[in-house]
Amino acid sequence: MGHDERPPRLATVTDAEEIARLLDDFNTEFETASPGVEVLSARLRALLKGDATFATLAGTPAVGVALVTLRPNVWYAGHVALLDELYVVPALRGLGIGSAVVDHMTSTCRARGVDLVEINVDEEDVDAQRFYERHGFSSTEPGSSERAFYYYQELVS
Amino acid sequence: MGHDERPPRLATVTDAEEIARLLDDFNTEFETASPGVEVLSARLRALLKGDATFATLAGTPAVGVALVTLRPNVWYAGHVALLDELYVVPALRGLGIGSAVVDHMTSTCRARGVDLVEINVDEEDVDAQRFYERHGFSSTEPGSSERAFYYYQELVS
Repeated sequence: MGHDERPPRLATVTDAEEIARLLDDFNTEFETASPGVEVLSARLRALLKGDATFATLAGTPAVGVALVTLRPNVWYAGHVALLDELYVVPALRGLGIGSAVVDHMTSTCRARGVDLVEINVDEEDVDAQRFYERHGFSSTEPGSSERAFYYYQELVS
Repeated sequence: MGHDERPPRLATVTDAEEIARLLDDFNTEFETASPGVEVLSARLRALLKGDATFATLAGTPAVGVALVTLRPNVWYAGHVALLDELYVVPALRGLGIGSAVVDHMTSTCRARGVDLVEINVDEEDVDAQRFYERHGFSSTEPGSSERAFYYYQELVS
């Protein structure tokens, strides 16, 4: 199956609906609730206009996406980035699209003054852990074997 | 040993140096590098002026602190908060100061339209895991036993 071989690109506001479709597909594939394409599109239009969110897209139409949010942090002079989502459509996995997207994402982070990139990876998803380790990510600090777990609490208003 | 029994409060820019001292003590205690009180103070003054960071303080002078950063997220209409640091001075632990600080921090998040609060907890720090679970945090989604590991990559410019 052929696919667009052009390198990944930084998404603009006009890509919001395409990203929304990919994220909605993502959650459908992994049986996670999604607010739906319309709600996601509206949020992405707002987010991509601001400074705290960017997305990397691969393919036209897009077949892979990385969604990143930025925040400040007292331990770094620059920003801290969290890779919120990385998705490649099922039919095009194993072709290096995810790698190209992550590399573009990391380059974009550097260009935007990011000092630290973070990601939460499922405990049992050893393939994803290996993938991120190949791309320079670590779950432990140098000289330590201790990892950290992600904890969360939803606030229902 | 007595301590200030007044409830925790939201920090202002004028608390920057006091927070910086606590964070520097934190890193000294856990043998982690710190850029030092002066650098941290300057960063905190800038951060606390903005909308993306707040801190909860307990005691005068402060003996406990929670430092929180906010970012947007496509899956939520509101903000996502990360509890970057929670610290209580060693001599005053076990008195409920950490609990009071976390409760104030969570209330502040609600008041600021936060939909999700996140924290990364060391794998071997079972006491901290129990503490956060008592305060409504979870490492797994409902119906799942799968946790997620925190991965990171520092970008050296």
